Amino acid sequence: MALRDEILEQPGVLRGWIETQMQTASGIAEAILSRDVQYIFLAARGSSDHAGVYAQYLFSARNRLAVALATPSLFTMYPQSPRLHNSLVIGISQSGQSPDIVSVIAEGRRQGAITLAITNDSDSPLARAAELTLGLHTGPEKAVAATKTYTAQLLALGALSVALAGNKEADLADLAGVPDAVQSALELEPEAERIAGRHALMDHCVVLGRGYNYATAQEWALKLKELAYVFTDVYSTADFRHGPIAIVEPGFPVLAVAPQGAVLADQLALFSRLRDDYKAKLVIISDSDQALSLGAEKLRLPPGLSEWLTPIVSIVPAQLFCYHLTRAKGYDTENPRMLHKITLTE
Amino acid sequence: MALRDEILEQPGVLRGWIETQMQTASGIAEAILSRDVQYIFLAARGSSDHAGVYAQYLFSARNRLAVALATPSLFTMYPQSPRLHNSLVIGISQSGQSPDIVSVIAEGRRQGAITLAITNDSDSPLARAAELTLGLHTGPEKAVAATKTYTAQLLALGALSVALAGNKEADLADLAGVPDAVQSALELEPEAERIAGRHALMDHCVVLGRGYNYATAQEWALKLKELAYVFTDVYSTADFRHGPIAIVEPGFPVLAVAPQGAVLADQLALFSRLRDDYKAKLVIISDSDQALSLGAEKLRLPPGLSEWLTPIVSIVPAQLFCYHLTRAKGYDTENPRMLHKITLTE
Repeated sequence: MALRDEILEQPGVLRGWIETQMQTASGIAEAILSRDVQYIFLAARGSSDHAGVYAQYLFSARNRLAVALATPSLFTMYPQSPRLHNSLVIGISQSGQSPDIVSVIAEGRRQGAITLAITNDSDSPLARAAELTLGLHTGPEKAVAATKTYTAQLLALGALSVALAGNKEADLADLAGVPDAVQSALELEPEAERIAGRHALMDHCVVLGRGYNYATAQEWALKLKELAYVFTDVYSTADFRHGPIAIVEPGFPVLAVAPQGAVLADQLALFSRLRDDYKAKLVIISDSDQALSLGAEKLRLPPGLSEWLTPIVSIVPAQLFCYHLTRAKGYDTENPRMLHKITLTE
Repeated sequence: MALRDEILEQPGVLRGWIETQMQTASGIAEAILSRDVQYIFLAARGSSDHAGVYAQYLFSARNRLAVALATPSLFTMYPQSPRLHNSLVIGISQSGQSPDIVSVIAEGRRQGAITLAITNDSDSPLARAAELTLGLHTGPEKAVAATKTYTAQLLALGALSVALAGNKEADLADLAGVPDAVQSALELEPEAERIAGRHALMDHCVVLGRGYNYATAQEWALKLKELAYVFTDVYSTADFRHGPIAIVEPGFPVLAVAPQGAVLADQLALFSRLRDDYKAKLVIISDSDQALSLGAEKLRLPPGLSEWLTPIVSIVPAQLFCYHLTRAKGYDTENPRMLHKITLTE
């Protein structure tokens, strides 16, 4: 089973990346710092777009760079593109093949912006279009659903943020702890399998996250849709209150990712309300006793990671849950119906 | 019924806005053009956030300004904010009350950025925090679900885009045609009511849009959730292909908004595939014969509007559909369960 193998490969892939790619990340950071970059303009689709959402929090909160997520159709469908010359233009794509992501990078380069490709194929059209490339080096990803390339994208972005901030000791030590934390998270597999088995009849749900882990919620939701065909909606805990919470009925399944950090208190208040007032049924991924105590089902993350790195670890039990839910439902984990590994959008 | 009344008030509200506010929009544009604005940083939640998505296409494609949609928690929950001094910071909120949107504007102003509030209450905390205010002047909105304030937000943004481009004759004429087009769209009510009646048992669906009307799809989906408690997922036509399309089974309801314009051809290809390969059941809002011919149900928009203004008109049949669906389901159109008009998020 390529999908499960690739989930299990993640600690090794991430360890290998840190051992071999930190120098490259530092070089790229130097090139960026030598320019007058006012903001980041980032293009991606699918799982890579969730890495982009992570980047939005990462570079804003840690490097004070605002991140605009590109709407690629502005580049392929409309005659005029925004002015990008004072921005850092980043394209993220596992395959590096999607023409619309390539065209954002190409337009940025044409305008004189500094351009960076983050991709698993350093000879892809995306890598060739960009001035700079940060490779993922995960080896081939065979399963249609992205797992190890997603966590490698987050790690590469994290390493770039660390380098942009001057490679501080504490940051480097935090980053070095990620592969072991991912290894520990893999030990949740038996529990994830049990919970998945109890959810074999689930055909709809909501996934919630906030801050750095809003990306995790989005990636978890996409996996539920593309592998297990669960009809899933995803929200930041804050946006959910602005209307969509109305759909929650007693017994409604709410999956939530809520590690320790700046947004936890706000999330706890909503989880209590969902459990007590709405009678929702919560599945919670967290390292917080308080958060886990609100869940009907709990997946306990390894403790001690800095909040900005938790998304690389918190997605792991979600991947395992989705893999086992897909099996519990009797679906094919390797070949989701009517999907291909590479989708070419223009 | 405040909700239906407010839907029907829209042509008058928009006409009144154009008659009285164009000068203010021009003054704000002048103030913006006198500064070295590199990009726009925009904060909003709920329906106002969908106006923000519209702004993203509008200012990028028409004014060459990239738009970063703020993640407000970065301002309220995390210690460091991005550097905004070279940006135009916009906050959109009907009530002007939400503390997190106010804090984005306040931080922008503290950093020396030019700041603009778009709100229905010119004496609200948001308006008081911003250097500039563009009022919506819709009169009080009593229904919990936003309708006239949403279309007024789009019109205000459209007028600002026109002013930033130098108030060209052709643009001004296009803008002046909007209230009549909205009036024509209201004539779709009997058809929207019939289609809603046939969907009274719908409990889940997907809404699709792309380009300028991706905002319309998002707003349509929110109305379905908050009024009719339909479990709804929303996608740009392009992103839908990257995985989520896997959830579509025969008979699956797909609602789509696809007026004439740059993205229509791409949308037609997907609609054909959804109808023929996936056996989805399509409800289509469009002024294109070809698009409408692919729908099991059709809502025909008035023809002739420039693409960048179509979102102000295309949401109208969607509002009518949601109003009548809510009634067909026997729910309360004025007081959705457990929702309040103003949600205060931090």
